[in-house]
Amino acid sequence: MFEQLGLIGCGLMGGSFALAMKRAGLVKRIVGYSKSPSTTEKAREMGVIDVEAPSALLAVSGADLVMLAVPVSATESTLKAIRHLVNPSMLLMDMGSTKRDVIDAVRRVLKHDVGSFVPCHPIAGREVSGVENADPMLFTGKQIIITPMERTQTAKLEKATEMWQALGCSVSQMSAEAHDAAFAAVSHLPHMLAFAMMNGIASQQEQAAVFLSLAGPGFRDFSRIAASDPQVWRDVLIANREELIAQLHHFQHALAKLEHAVTNSQADDLERLINQASHMRASWRMNSLAK
Amino acid sequence: MFEQLGLIGCGLMGGSFALAMKRAGLVKRIVGYSKSPSTTEKAREMGVIDVEAPSALLAVSGADLVMLAVPVSATESTLKAIRHLVNPSMLLMDMGSTKRDVIDAVRRVLKHDVGSFVPCHPIAGREVSGVENADPMLFTGKQIIITPMERTQTAKLEKATEMWQALGCSVSQMSAEAHDAAFAAVSHLPHMLAFAMMNGIASQQEQAAVFLSLAGPGFRDFSRIAASDPQVWRDVLIANREELIAQLHHFQHALAKLEHAVTNSQADDLERLINQASHMRASWRMNSLAK
Repeated sequence: MFEQLGLIGCGLMGGSFALAMKRAGLVKRIVGYSKSPSTTEKAREMGVIDVEAPSALLAVSGADLVMLAVPVSATESTLKAIRHLVNPSMLLMDMGSTKRDVIDAVRRVLKHDVGSFVPCHPIAGREVSGVENADPMLFTGKQIIITPMERTQTAKLEKATEMWQALGCSVSQMSAEAHDAAFAAVSHLPHMLAFAMMNGIASQQEQAAVFLSLAGPGFRDFSRIAASDPQVWRDVLIANREELIAQLHHFQHALAKLEHAVTNSQADDLERLINQASHMRASWRMNSLAK
Repeated sequence: MFEQLGLIGCGLMGGSFALAMKRAGLVKRIVGYSKSPSTTEKAREMGVIDVEAPSALLAVSGADLVMLAVPVSATESTLKAIRHLVNPSMLLMDMGSTKRDVIDAVRRVLKHDVGSFVPCHPIAGREVSGVENADPMLFTGKQIIITPMERTQTAKLEKATEMWQALGCSVSQMSAEAHDAAFAAVSHLPHMLAFAMMNGIASQQEQAAVFLSLAGPGFRDFSRIAASDPQVWRDVLIANREELIAQLHHFQHALAKLEHAVTNSQADDLERLINQASHMRASWRMNSLAK
C-alpha cells in the first residue's frame, strides 16, 4: 500500500504503529527519526524501523506516508523542520490526543500543503512508554477518530481510513471542536480533578498520611489516573485548555448545586442530584472497542 | 460472651453482624427489629435472628448487647425509641460511616447513659444491600475504627474491642473529628466530585451521549463511585457536611492552582502540580485490611 513510511517519533505510539504496518504488510520500508539518537538506534536494532534518519527532514525524504508520533507540544516545531520536503502526493498524519492545536499548527506551518494532512487520534495507549514497549497489536480493535480539516483532500482522507481499517481499527469522523470537547469532558477534566483531589489532601500536611491510610477501593479507582505521566498530561491539558476550562465550568456549576444542597441539608434536592449522576453512570457501558 | 443481642436494623450490615456473632459463638440469642416487618420476618426465616421484636424498644428489652445498624439519619429517632430500656450494664454500639453526628445524637438522647455507648465504624460493605445478602464473613480481616466519647466507659470500650477482634477484625481508635475529616477527604469528597462530573456532562444535553460514547478505562474507574446508592450518599454527605465542605475547600484551592496554570499555559507550574499528585498517588498502597 505504501512504499516508504517516514516515522517521526519512535516511542511507544510511533513504534507500535511501525510494527503494526509491517505486520499487516502495508509498507515496504520505514525510515525513522527520534529526538534522542539512542531511541532511533534502539528502534532500528529492534527492527521497528529499517533505516535511521539523522533528522526529521531526512525521515520525510522519499516517503509517501509520514506519521508524526511526537508529543502534541512538539507538533509545530516538527512541521517546521520537515516542511521543505512535504509535497502534495504524500499522506501526512499525526496521532495526537488533542486536535485543534495540531490543526492550528498545520495551518500555520504547511500553508498550501495542508490538504495532505489527515489529523488522527487513535484511542489506544498504555501506562508504560518507550520503544521497548512498542506492540504491533496496540491499535487492533481500537477506535480511531479522524478530524478532517476543510481543505483535507478527500483522497487522502479515504487512504488514511483504509489504512487504519487494514490495521483492524474502527474509524469514525467528527469535527476537531467536537473531539476536543468530548475528550475534555471524559478524559482531561477527570485527570485534572484527580490531580486536584490528591493535591488537596497533600496540602493538609501531617493529616494526609492518616487520611491515606484509611482510603479504600473507591478512592483507589477514583484516584488511579492521578498517577499519570506529568509531562504528557501537562502538554495535553495546556493543548486543550479552551475546551478543558469550558468543561471545568460545567463541572463547577454542577458542584455548586451539590454544595448548596449539602450545606443547607436539602435532602430532597441532594438525592435528586445524586440520582441523576448515579442513573447516568449505572446505565453507561464502555464502548468495547475502547477497552 | 453475650447472652442476648438486640439488633436494630436487619439489612446487609446488621444481618452480617448477627451471622458473624453466631458463627463465632459470641452470643446465645438474637432479638431483631427492622422498620419493615417483612425484613424482620425474612431475617428470622433465614436464621439471621432468633426472635422478631415488634418494636425497637422491645428488641432492647433483656439485651446485654445492642447494635444499631440503621442509616445514620435514623440514629436519633432510634435512640429516642429505645432510651427507656437502656441501662448502664448494656453495651451499645453503632456501625455508622460518620461519627460526630452519631455522637451528637447519643449525647442529646441518652444523657446519663452515654457511658455505655461505643461509636464504631467497620470499614466494610458491599455494592448490594438487604438481609438476603448478609454475609458472616463481611467483617473478617477488616478495619474497625472506634471513636470513643469522653464519657465512654473504659470497660465498655475494652469489651467492644475484644468483640470485634474475636470476629477477626483489626481495631483502631481515633477521635470522631479525625475520623470524619479523613473519610470526608478520601471517601465523601471523591463521591461528591464524581457526582458533579457526571452532572456536568448531563447538563450538556445531546452532546452528553457523544461524550460518553468516547469514554474509556480512565473514565470508567474515575466515575465508578458515581453509581452509588443515592439515599445512602444523600445521608452520608449531609451527616458529615461540615468536614466535607472543609475538604471541598482544600480541593477547590488545589483546583484553582491547576486552573490558573492551565489558563495561562504555565507549563512548569502545571508540571510541578501534576507531579505532586502523581507522585503521591503512585506511592500510595491500599491498606490490605481495607480491601
